[in-house]
Amino acid sequence: MSGSVSPLAPKTFVSMPALRGVRMATASAGIKYKNRTDVLMMVFDKPAAVAGVFTRSKCPSAPVDFCRANLPGGVARAVVVNSGNANAFTGVKGREATALTAKSAAAAVGCAESEIFLASTGVIGEPLDATKFSGVLDTLYSDASGDFWFEAAKAIMTTDTYPKVATRTAEIGGVAVSINGIAKGAGMIAPDMATMLSFVVTDADIAPAALQAMLSQGVDPTFNSMTVDSDTSTSDTLMLFATGAAAEDGQVRVETAGDPRLASFRAALNDLLKDLALQVVRDGEGATKMLEITVTGAESDAAAKTIALSIANSPLVKTAAAGEDANWGRIVMAVGKSGEMADRDRLAIWFGDVRVAVNGERDAGYSEEAASNVMKKQDIPVKVEIGLGNGTATVWTCDLTKEYVAINGDYRS
Amino acid sequence: MSGSVSPLAPKTFVSMPALRGVRMATASAGIKYKNRTDVLMMVFDKPAAVAGVFTRSKCPSAPVDFCRANLPGGVARAVVVNSGNANAFTGVKGREATALTAKSAAAAVGCAESEIFLASTGVIGEPLDATKFSGVLDTLYSDASGDFWFEAAKAIMTTDTYPKVATRTAEIGGVAVSINGIAKGAGMIAPDMATMLSFVVTDADIAPAALQAMLSQGVDPTFNSMTVDSDTSTSDTLMLFATGAAAEDGQVRVETAGDPRLASFRAALNDLLKDLALQVVRDGEGATKMLEITVTGAESDAAAKTIALSIANSPLVKTAAAGEDANWGRIVMAVGKSGEMADRDRLAIWFGDVRVAVNGERDAGYSEEAASNVMKKQDIPVKVEIGLGNGTATVWTCDLTKEYVAINGDYRS
Repeated sequence: MSGSVSPLAPKTFVSMPALRGVRMATASAGIKYKNRTDVLMMVFDKPAAVAGVFTRSKCPSAPVDFCRANLPGGVARAVVVNSGNANAFTGVKGREATALTAKSAAAAVGCAESEIFLASTGVIGEPLDATKFSGVLDTLYSDASGDFWFEAAKAIMTTDTYPKVATRTAEIGGVAVSINGIAKGAGMIAPDMATMLSFVVTDADIAPAALQAMLSQGVDPTFNSMTVDSDTSTSDTLMLFATGAAAEDGQVRVETAGDPRLASFRAALNDLLKDLALQVVRDGEGATKMLEITVTGAESDAAAKTIALSIANSPLVKTAAAGEDANWGRIVMAVGKSGEMADRDRLAIWFGDVRVAVNGERDAGYSEEAASNVMKKQDIPVKVEIGLGNGTATVWTCDLTKEYVAINGDYRS
Repeated sequence: MSGSVSPLAPKTFVSMPALRGVRMATASAGIKYKNRTDVLMMVFDKPAAVAGVFTRSKCPSAPVDFCRANLPGGVARAVVVNSGNANAFTGVKGREATALTAKSAAAAVGCAESEIFLASTGVIGEPLDATKFSGVLDTLYSDASGDFWFEAAKAIMTTDTYPKVATRTAEIGGVAVSINGIAKGAGMIAPDMATMLSFVVTDADIAPAALQAMLSQGVDPTFNSMTVDSDTSTSDTLMLFATGAAAEDGQVRVETAGDPRLASFRAALNDLLKDLALQVVRDGEGATKMLEITVTGAESDAAAKTIALSIANSPLVKTAAAGEDANWGRIVMAVGKSGEMADRDRLAIWFGDVRVAVNGERDAGYSEEAASNVMKKQDIPVKVEIGLGNGTATVWTCDLTKEYVAINGDYRS
């Protein structure tokens, strides 16, 4: 954990209720950090349905490979997460480490290794000594408790300055269900330092295929619409588990994502994913501002997202935000370089409610003072109207500060 | 010009000889800067052949539109370049400004407006008052001299910390010819502050189509293989002019780029373009290191270039370089996120001659001290072997420092 907490951190943390069917425990295995927890075990008392989405990196970590192989089974009994070492780019040793961890976890739980899921975050290229887990997993399994979400979120932190938690309720066929989630991430992503991991659990009874469809859809406007620094981790992992405990209250198992009974659940899940994703952006390394960038009027939603990400990833846009500079010229630049269709003479740009450019030139009525006042806030809405079609997208990013350079450039020296 | 000169600046500047058929002059038109030259006029005594490549931005500046429209004519009599205002995103006013400047220049030279070429660099979105030119162009035309290259390079600077000049000689059919070039650029690119402009002139007698083919080909491994911050200007302009003065020495005009007599000229041109491109990278805003990134063994040359640019544009790779950190994990990350085919277990990575990773894991024999010594140098060669095919590419970039953030974030505050 860094010395100081992000200025964009939540002022208070939500109270995380226990969730039926899942227990957790943490330990200090001494993987890298001293005097802090670095292993989390999440245990499902009965087999839980599981879904997952992973990094698009062509060089994924060993745990990502391991999870992808187990996912088609659709059943989870435990998740083991460590911080301090990403077990990425570790070759044969990496596969041996995941195999040994899974074997130890399966023995502790009394289940098949195919029902174990793994995630690692931390230094890459350094072999992970999985024997450090073997001693602790038995104890973690027996000690695990339901009321442990906040501690769990803390155990998986690396350069995060605060733990990320969220909870929602919904109903399925009139039966109340809950969703809890934790996440970590501070760069998007520094493989040596941080990585995006998130674990979401519900007590609803939902089949794996339906979970997977909802998760894959839900990730697009949330975790896949945020960027801290345009860099993609080798370890990004987002998993969704359904313990099915709500069946005890009479909730009838839902088999397909298209089932109308999932409307409330889907809305709550998407809202929770967005909440967690924004918490990650707000903890972006060195961040002092959050930018919400909305593009409208593009040729398609996909084109709008490409343009929005081009703006969100532009170092010049992000440094201007750090300097509280309403520099709409850099927005024009980023639209122009996106590769998507744009007509300079139809562009309009807003900072907050202040329209600074319209019809391809500076808005004659625009007040520099009003625009500057928007830039002084912590949360800065940016809107760009392309004027060509109906495509829209919203993405979130943070500013680029000297502190980002310090965190990522100075830490070894 | 910034207060301090880039530590990567050339220790000495080459002496720039006059070049037959072209004359230059500069003036202080007071466009934005005080007490410095901000207008350059380049005059060709006889109609010169002309070629050009321009920004790929979908929101190009008015001068870029103007040049593109005149380029098919293939003939240039004068170029007018200003710093301080980019005349970009200026709508109808922008087109009126280019029209007025071209009219004034054509009147001064006594040629058609279609034989005038224009470039502007500086603030975007601010209307350019072209009436400031009208008074000075007549004087510039009559005052223009051949021995003025270094002054010309200075007049087009914005955030550049040093002028960029290069000269080469070659032969065509046994007749000696020369090539001179100037460039500006310090971000790649900050539309509010900097922009890549380059003007190259030869006294060779070469037809426009042959010039254009050589320039389009030559730009790919040079100016299109460098990046400072991944941001693309609305104004990038690279033009090549041939005065044809060498015809007086008996050089027979060359009509097509495939003509074998162009071998020496082509090599000299490419070498000069690379020289100028590297001078721009070395003046990257806040730069303290230059990285030469070579990718081999990719599926194709295009794939190699995509991977190399993914590495070169990664904020985490660039901040690690600033911190003199041999952080090969971030190279793996950048290879993985490029989208191109890669097999983690075949990757090998070198800093200088030090192989730090091989076969998908850390090189067992690698010395951290040796790798650190490479990182301490100003010029850092990075090599990545993908292990899949024969595609290769080399790109150049600079590190990302707190000073970059300061230049681009603090300048308005």
